[in-house]
Amino acid sequence: MSLLGPGEDTFTPIRWVDGALELLDQRQLPVDETWVRCGHWRAVADAIRDMVVRGAPAIGIAAAYGLALAAAEDSEGDLGEAFAGLAATRPTAVNLFWALDRLQCVSAPGPDRAERLLAEAQRIHGEDLMMCQRMGAHGAPLLPEGARVLTHCNAGALATGGHGTALGIIRSAHAMGRISQVLADETRPFLQGARLTAWELHRDGIPVRVITDNMAAHFMGQGMVDAVVVGTDRIAANGDVANKIGTYGLAILAHHHGLPFIVAGPTSTIDLQTPDGAAIPIEQRPDREVTHVGSTRLVPEAVGVYNPAFDVTPAGLVTAIVTEQGVLRPPFEAGLAAHVAAASAQRETTD
Amino acid sequence: MSLLGPGEDTFTPIRWVDGALELLDQRQLPVDETWVRCGHWRAVADAIRDMVVRGAPAIGIAAAYGLALAAAEDSEGDLGEAFAGLAATRPTAVNLFWALDRLQCVSAPGPDRAERLLAEAQRIHGEDLMMCQRMGAHGAPLLPEGARVLTHCNAGALATGGHGTALGIIRSAHAMGRISQVLADETRPFLQGARLTAWELHRDGIPVRVITDNMAAHFMGQGMVDAVVVGTDRIAANGDVANKIGTYGLAILAHHHGLPFIVAGPTSTIDLQTPDGAAIPIEQRPDREVTHVGSTRLVPEAVGVYNPAFDVTPAGLVTAIVTEQGVLRPPFEAGLAAHVAAASAQRETTD
Repeated sequence: MSLLGPGEDTFTPIRWVDGALELLDQRQLPVDETWVRCGHWRAVADAIRDMVVRGAPAIGIAAAYGLALAAAEDSEGDLGEAFAGLAATRPTAVNLFWALDRLQCVSAPGPDRAERLLAEAQRIHGEDLMMCQRMGAHGAPLLPEGARVLTHCNAGALATGGHGTALGIIRSAHAMGRISQVLADETRPFLQGARLTAWELHRDGIPVRVITDNMAAHFMGQGMVDAVVVGTDRIAANGDVANKIGTYGLAILAHHHGLPFIVAGPTSTIDLQTPDGAAIPIEQRPDREVTHVGSTRLVPEAVGVYNPAFDVTPAGLVTAIVTEQGVLRPPFEAGLAAHVAAASAQRETTD
Repeated sequence: MSLLGPGEDTFTPIRWVDGALELLDQRQLPVDETWVRCGHWRAVADAIRDMVVRGAPAIGIAAAYGLALAAAEDSEGDLGEAFAGLAATRPTAVNLFWALDRLQCVSAPGPDRAERLLAEAQRIHGEDLMMCQRMGAHGAPLLPEGARVLTHCNAGALATGGHGTALGIIRSAHAMGRISQVLADETRPFLQGARLTAWELHRDGIPVRVITDNMAAHFMGQGMVDAVVVGTDRIAANGDVANKIGTYGLAILAHHHGLPFIVAGPTSTIDLQTPDGAAIPIEQRPDREVTHVGSTRLVPEAVGVYNPAFDVTPAGLVTAIVTEQGVLRPPFEAGLAAHVAAASAQRETTD
């Protein structure tokens, strides 16, 4: 089973095969399962930018392997260009910079540098899967029995080292028999919900239905949603959360209907250097993602569009933040700082 | 100018040419401008069901012409089948039933029945344009100078006899120099905003940008929206409003951000027989509108979807209802009843 990752119960969209990085091409799902093979760090950077691979944790993992590829070419030279090139691919996901920082720490020149960087990339990959499984275990009890859960974008196995963050919670809850249905927002413009979340949940036998993004309020109003669970690309020090465009609106709708709004992300998603959401850079993506689907033009040629890829949900609308270390409740500041400190201490002990 | 309607400043998607009804095929916009010619009432019913023509007032007008076609075949026979067949096309828009009721009143058998019905259909068509222009005049002053207005779906010239309801307000406000930008929600799944609203506003030189539905909250949060203006398919006696799926969510978002939420529709949209929104039937449309765009499949084959075409916005989230008679403010009950009574009295006087 080529899609099986380090654990047997999940799959990973990222694999290291014969000295190169292979990425499941998520642009082709759900119709085709094809892999893009990257033998050079520049190919990895292109794949991240073009969204062959996406999802904050998966981007970090892919970039780490990309740096290992750069080191394989040259055991002594400066890796600065590769670091900068990979860091410049996507501005919002903080896990990218976090992963590159970790590789930086083991990137001193030397004959074994390539092995060191590859080993660290693989460690990040394996850790991410384990962290997702822990997030699942911590988050699943937050959902009621027979939960109808609404999720947005894809914060699943396809976005991580495996299992997923938001979908990790849903997978773990499903394994406990607590999920009766998942509603997956299609998540325009890139349609990660329709294409990816539906694909991976259906593959795992978890009941899922796709709705257009603008249907969420209707189904909440009809009493068909018990909780909203989403992933995140960056959590500011105060608990403001950057995530896929549409998340902020969903948080308002959940608040209006008195529904829990749960955010899942590994500690590497917490960015204490960013005081609040206003300081998070929001990536603007190409117009064509909005103006077209496949070859079909949706918007008249002369008419402009906007395409911010992310939005910021204020901490006040977040019911709980789930990391691999546990569940945080508002106010979030102290808990987020404690999770970051504990993760750093853990790494120092391990190293 | 084939698209020019009874007024010179607008166009109509519905025209009577050489004894047949021609409908601008809105499924082909914005790429192609083609017309569907209907010589039989059944072709009109198909065109309404398949959304060649859409928008509550336009559906009513098209159905009225459809009945005139049925009468042209037979000056004496029972028109019950045509009435029933046209009424069964779309369940949510009340203007459809209102228009058919008006035709019913002049449908007594006789040699001039076809002329009577055609004249009444044309009267409904012309009246609708006039009513839209009045809605525009009443509604435009509700918008601030330099307004940035967000709208959903297409409640424009393409959805009416011309000028539009929500877009009628925007057109009139633009003529007064009050509009700096319109944000058009793309409006999945049928994409009336991206395809139709963008097309007709750009055609009239009104600055418009398209956003995906899930971006609305982000732009409200960024202070880039001053008001939300939408149309409606049915207004219940208590002021609850049925409109295109996504409207309810927008109303919640507008409320959260302290923005006015303005609903525009002719008096024929008010249904005093429906006490509140819970009694409004919500049309469920085919899965394919959600699973595909053009020939591109978005959702895995084995995964189900939901496709409610409308939702209901509670009166408590509505700032103002604009009809051709004026602006209603909450509580709406008495004002809605008065508008209906005044319109009936007006018709009796005219008749």
